[in-house]
Amino acid sequence: MIKHITILGAGNVATHLTLGLHDAGFTITEIFSPSEEKSSLLAGKVKSKVCKRIEELSPNSDLYLLCIPDRFIGEVSMQIPRTNGIVAHTSGITPMNSIKRHKNIGVFYPLQTFSAKRDIALDKVPFCIEASSATICSELKQTALQLGSNVKEVDTGQRQLLHLAAVFVNNFVNFLYTSGAEILRKKNLPFDFLLPLIEETARKITEIEPYEAQTGPARRNDITTMEIHKKMLDENAELKDLYDKISNLIINKYNEQL
Amino acid sequence: MIKHITILGAGNVATHLTLGLHDAGFTITEIFSPSEEKSSLLAGKVKSKVCKRIEELSPNSDLYLLCIPDRFIGEVSMQIPRTNGIVAHTSGITPMNSIKRHKNIGVFYPLQTFSAKRDIALDKVPFCIEASSATICSELKQTALQLGSNVKEVDTGQRQLLHLAAVFVNNFVNFLYTSGAEILRKKNLPFDFLLPLIEETARKITEIEPYEAQTGPARRNDITTMEIHKKMLDENAELKDLYDKISNLIINKYNEQL
Repeated sequence: MIKHITILGAGNVATHLTLGLHDAGFTITEIFSPSEEKSSLLAGKVKSKVCKRIEELSPNSDLYLLCIPDRFIGEVSMQIPRTNGIVAHTSGITPMNSIKRHKNIGVFYPLQTFSAKRDIALDKVPFCIEASSATICSELKQTALQLGSNVKEVDTGQRQLLHLAAVFVNNFVNFLYTSGAEILRKKNLPFDFLLPLIEETARKITEIEPYEAQTGPARRNDITTMEIHKKMLDENAELKDLYDKISNLIINKYNEQL
Repeated sequence: MIKHITILGAGNVATHLTLGLHDAGFTITEIFSPSEEKSSLLAGKVKSKVCKRIEELSPNSDLYLLCIPDRFIGEVSMQIPRTNGIVAHTSGITPMNSIKRHKNIGVFYPLQTFSAKRDIALDKVPFCIEASSATICSELKQTALQLGSNVKEVDTGQRQLLHLAAVFVNNFVNFLYTSGAEILRKKNLPFDFLLPLIEETARKITEIEPYEAQTGPARRNDITTMEIHKKMLDENAELKDLYDKISNLIINKYNEQL
């Protein structure tokens, strides 16, 4: 059973998981990060040791949680001391076998967006679990359940699809919010005015399939309105092009029904 | 002061506004729609008369609210009897002067997405008001306030910008939700798993500017991850192209900071 945890990293994911695991009763024994300032700050909050050098890590933790950028996962995992504990990363895109140097490995991927400035209730975060054995899988699942979270066992391919879908519904959606704000700024209109619409758009699909929830000029192939909109974007070639592209995708998708 | 209201239309906007205005104490005297089935159903709920022919409308209502598709607004408004009441449309894109045949005109545009299947609390809907005189503006504002709504006075140009921005943050965002669902369907993964992320994405920007809230592979110019994602979309040329386009827009927007 997992009790003592080593955290590698001190960024957004590391911070949220460290605080959440600590609150859920786990002992964060040590935090490793090249940035001593960040790791000291975080370690202070959970009464953990700070490791500046990875070689200093104890081999006795039950779980080594890699919360670091994807490109460092393979290399850093190689430097974790040989251990009977579980070595797991938290990446959506990195294959589990990138840390296969270790005996007991797994993936503990929170399907959520973390920001330094916002608290996230971990009990609303679905965790995607993968592991090198049924026992390890069960231990990682148990850990996520102790955070109060949803848990789903997925393989690397499924997790990568979830990560890709997350880019569409989070990163790209946020870019559309930014685009909306940019359009309004032209006439000093407040972005706040769109918030009820944004909230309802996100809520609607909890009850109605997004395919069914689609509305708007492209959905009904309202060429007149789309022409007016495009004319309004004459001075913003990038957003005009994006408007055209997404509208055409919508028109094509629903075309058979028109 | 507005008390007696004629509703033209029986679709989603007409239905939500009719029920909301009735609940707020207004009298819906008559509902006109070419679809007698829909208007009868709606009229039954608010004890209103049904008009099958527009010529039958009384000239004595205080407000004639056009809740019909944009392309019919000009033509239908011409057939409303001459009246001392206010004639207003509810469109985001149609200029106010498209109904200028009448003496007292205005716009009463709810900045929200309405579906037949979902109740919307009108007290969370911002109304964009435009009017041919200060008196009419004040009466329309008062009507929206009685619904408990936010009210903002905007001219046609501003309203059209709000409508355009709404297409980005509602219609296009919903299309990205549909795309996410499509990606997951490939391996029978449930769309539900993305809902906490979608909710948090929409909530985050109530506290953080969307420009600041941007995360993801494109934001950090993580070419390796983007290449993996694109490879996963090899069988879906449309979404691959869209992935490329939005990623490049994000990369360009944040490039100076990299």
